[in-house]
Amino acid sequence: MLSEHFNVRFYETDALQHVSNTVLVGWFEAAREPLFKIFNPQLSLTNWPLILASYKVDFIAQIFYGSEVEVKTGISRLGNSSFEVYQQVWQNDKLCAEGHTTMVHFDYQTQKSAAIPATIRQQLQALITTNS
Amino acid sequence: MLSEHFNVRFYETDALQHVSNTVLVGWFEAAREPLFKIFNPQLSLTNWPLILASYKVDFIAQIFYGSEVEVKTGISRLGNSSFEVYQQVWQNDKLCAEGHTTMVHFDYQTQKSAAIPATIRQQLQALITTNS
Amino acid sequence: MLSEHFNVRFYETDALQHVSNTVLVGWFEAAREPLFKIFNPQLSLTNWPLILASYKVDFIAQIFYGSEVEVKTGISRLGNSSFEVYQQVWQNDKLCAEGHTTMVHFDYQTQKSAAIPATIRQQLQALITTNS
Amino acid sequence: MLSEHFNVRFYETDALQHVSNTVLVGWFEAAREPLFKIFNPQLSLTNWPLILASYKVDFIAQIFYGSEVEVKTGISRLGNSSFEVYQQVWQNDKLCAEGHTTMVHFDYQTQKSAAIPATIRQQLQALITTNS
Repeated sequence: MLSEHFNVRFYETDALQHVSNTVLVGWFEAAREPLFKIFNPQLSLTNWPLILASYKVDFIAQIFYGSEVEVKTGISRLGNSSFEVYQQVWQNDKLCAEGHTTMVHFDYQTQKSAAIPATIRQQLQALITTNS
Repeated sequence: MLSEHFNVRFYETDALQHVSNTVLVGWFEAAREPLFKIFNPQLSLTNWPLILASYKVDFIAQIFYGSEVEVKTGISRLGNSSFEVYQQVWQNDKLCAEGHTTMVHFDYQTQKSAAIPATIRQQLQALITTNS
Repeated sequence: MLSEHFNVRFYETDALQHVSNTVLVGWFEAAREPLFKIFNPQLSLTNWPLILASYKVDFIAQIFYGSEVEVKTGISRLGNSSFEVYQQVWQNDKLCAEGHTTMVHFDYQTQKSAAIPATIRQQLQALITTNS
Repeated sequence: MLSEHFNVRFYETDALQHVSNTVLVGWFEAAREPLFKIFNPQLSLTNWPLILASYKVDFIAQIFYGSEVEVKTGISRLGNSSFEVYQQVWQNDKLCAEGHTTMVHFDYQTQKSAAIPATIRQQLQALITTNS
């Protein structure tokens, strides 16, 4: 799986003195950047090729300020025009959260989904993970 | 269902010129405040009685800057110590997103879940919605 | 002065159990929306006419979860192409923070500032406040 | 000056297709973490020793998604109980923003400021920068 490391930012905590639940979808999006580059190598904002259809996050253990987190990213399902990203947040060797995000290959001009091209499909296939 | 109205804040948009997917879990949390008050009428931060176990958000239509949104909130499942909140985001009479969030009645001191007291259960029951 | 009321959102707090300092610039931006409408009545994203040059926020008292805040907004300086917005955050009848934000009438196509048109200038003049 | 590198996160952009002005104070806070450690080596949330009194950010050039940013951090003023942090944001070898933040050595129990201890003062002095 792909891996990104982040420091927990102080403002990402909340009054329960742990990381706010609202923060994780931002971390997951940031950790999907290598997938964005597969579709859009220059990360160009004109003709951005993806839209998010749904996400689900399961919170397993609280995450705290003061230790970095690792976000691991793989592909758990690869469809014709959509795919599911499976992600994990780890802190201090503990699995703290899991995310499943459905992304759609999308044309913002026509507002329609589109089949994932073969060359992109190959690169996504290399990231398929079975431990989701 | 309970109802809250928010203006879309400019910083809640992203470079795709729509509301960022990461924003919705914050709106949903804000719209759950009446539920927080059922458990914790003073919203006291000492002995906060709830923890979030999971959320799932389905994105149906893009949300844009310039028109307010309405977030509707009901209860879709009521268990012994946990319950599921069902929420909708509407903009310009269009259903734009749905959320399902599992909350647990929780004691942060002992780090254990706890049965939902009867008086609270009654108030949650009054919010049960079947259109989830 | 213009006035907007917000509930403090739970995720806007941080581990010090008060509102994070990082939140206020977002509230101030949200409360400037009536000024955005003076320049851009439809809030259209094509040809957005303003850019932010600087902001300064002074924190006078901590802001807490559980009570709404009021953000008051006026104009403290009106120049040829730029103007300064003066804002206050109040909670429970206490002045908690003040903000000064310099905005520039700006053309994103040419990347140049432009004089503020007379009809807009008149509307801004009506919002000039002297208690900044 | 101290240096931190961040990727721009997609959700940190706004509908003007640049980084939202509201994001910078969060980056600056994150980049002050080494200063937090001087006061509080374990970053313990009990007896957090600092409060923010004011910040000012000057925006010099727009910041965009797709290239990392570097945040440089130094001390521009060292008083008895307070100090000013000077920070810069760089992207692609361009100075994009400057920040000045006043922090106060603070006791949240008594709600009073306190003189900066000599050993901490020495470490801050080593970070004094004159190019602010």
